[in-house]
Amino acid sequence: MTDPTATTPDRRPGGRTARVRAQVLDAVRAELTESGHEGLTMEGVATRAGVHRTTVYRRWRDVGGLLVDVIDAAGEVDWQPPDTGSLRGDLTALNQEIQESLVVQPSFALALMAASFHSEQAARAQRKLWADRYAQCEILVDRAGGRGELPSRDTDARALLITATAPLYHQLVLLRTDPDPRLPERAAAAAVVAAVAGAFAVRPEEGD
Amino acid sequence: MTDPTATTPDRRPGGRTARVRAQVLDAVRAELTESGHEGLTMEGVATRAGVHRTTVYRRWRDVGGLLVDVIDAAGEVDWQPPDTGSLRGDLTALNQEIQESLVVQPSFALALMAASFHSEQAARAQRKLWADRYAQCEILVDRAGGRGELPSRDTDARALLITATAPLYHQLVLLRTDPDPRLPERAAAAAVVAAVAGAFAVRPEEGD
Repeated sequence: MTDPTATTPDRRPGGRTARVRAQVLDAVRAELTESGHEGLTMEGVATRAGVHRTTVYRRWRDVGGLLVDVIDAAGEVDWQPPDTGSLRGDLTALNQEIQESLVVQPSFALALMAASFHSEQAARAQRKLWADRYAQCEILVDRAGGRGELPSRDTDARALLITATAPLYHQLVLLRTDPDPRLPERAAAAAVVAAVAGAFAVRPEEGD
Repeated sequence: MTDPTATTPDRRPGGRTARVRAQVLDAVRAELTESGHEGLTMEGVATRAGVHRTTVYRRWRDVGGLLVDVIDAAGEVDWQPPDTGSLRGDLTALNQEIQESLVVQPSFALALMAASFHSEQAARAQRKLWADRYAQCEILVDRAGGRGELPSRDTDARALLITATAPLYHQLVLLRTDPDPRLPERAAAAAVVAAVAGAFAVRPEEGD
């Protein structure tokens, strides 16, 4: 184990290392959203960040390293799932957040997804971020169970969350349809209806 | 209007033009699935197809033109939506087909999606192919209505189909989870439960 008190001064939060990282990751986000994954270069990021190239190479190694760190940084944000008082309200709010992140022009979320088709490192980091977010959202289902909104506490929370959110990604990322302002609520409502009808009940043989 | 009888001999189905197209598109599919969109070049396709480079340039112009034609060709296949006798069976069969196309290694469907992140032409062609396929599948919902499986004939067929199929794409394309052999049926079942409960009912004010 590393002794946490052994941290050198420039590694403490808010120190030089943290400042350099913030500058570099801001530059990565800006380059990614403006020119996409193909336009991302170590040199471009260093120039935009105003950081020496050798620092960027030493610390992030290559474009894959930059992508991974920018995704990891997204996971470090203190994000909290919505808490509106009802499952339908929570899932609608979640879907609205997803829709906004995909519809904003240019979309950093879309640029990351495109990048993860071409970088196995980025794909892995993104998979982890998504898994974490879905895990955080399971509390929505627990709370709904506690309020008696669901027929049984044994609801497959992940399956319910995927059903509620997948239509947003499918329509906006893959089918590229125009955003439908009613979709966040409709997709949420359909998932709740299915959940209430027992569609995500964990069958006894699976729990054993 | 062009006189259809004015077709030159080498443009008739099965003629030289059709043979060259088949050879070139086979080469595009092979190159795409093997090396992805980045590996696709006019020269590579011409060499693999055994067709002169100038023919490929004249007819398809650039890599975007090849991608569009390979997607258009996928739309020309005489695909029929499943007809199993129940909505749940039909949607499960449809999802199984989708899952197979995404899980096969290497996956041409995945390679096309990756390409459409980088080529606006390919994205447009793919959007059209998907719209056509979903339109073809609306008959599943009509038939289910006719059999009395749905509460009302005024079911938003597209919304139901998206809900049934989106989890497959979300899990396998974006989240890249390991394929779950039960997912095709589960996603289908959840959509049917939601449909039966009226989640996709077209509200009267929308039809007016």
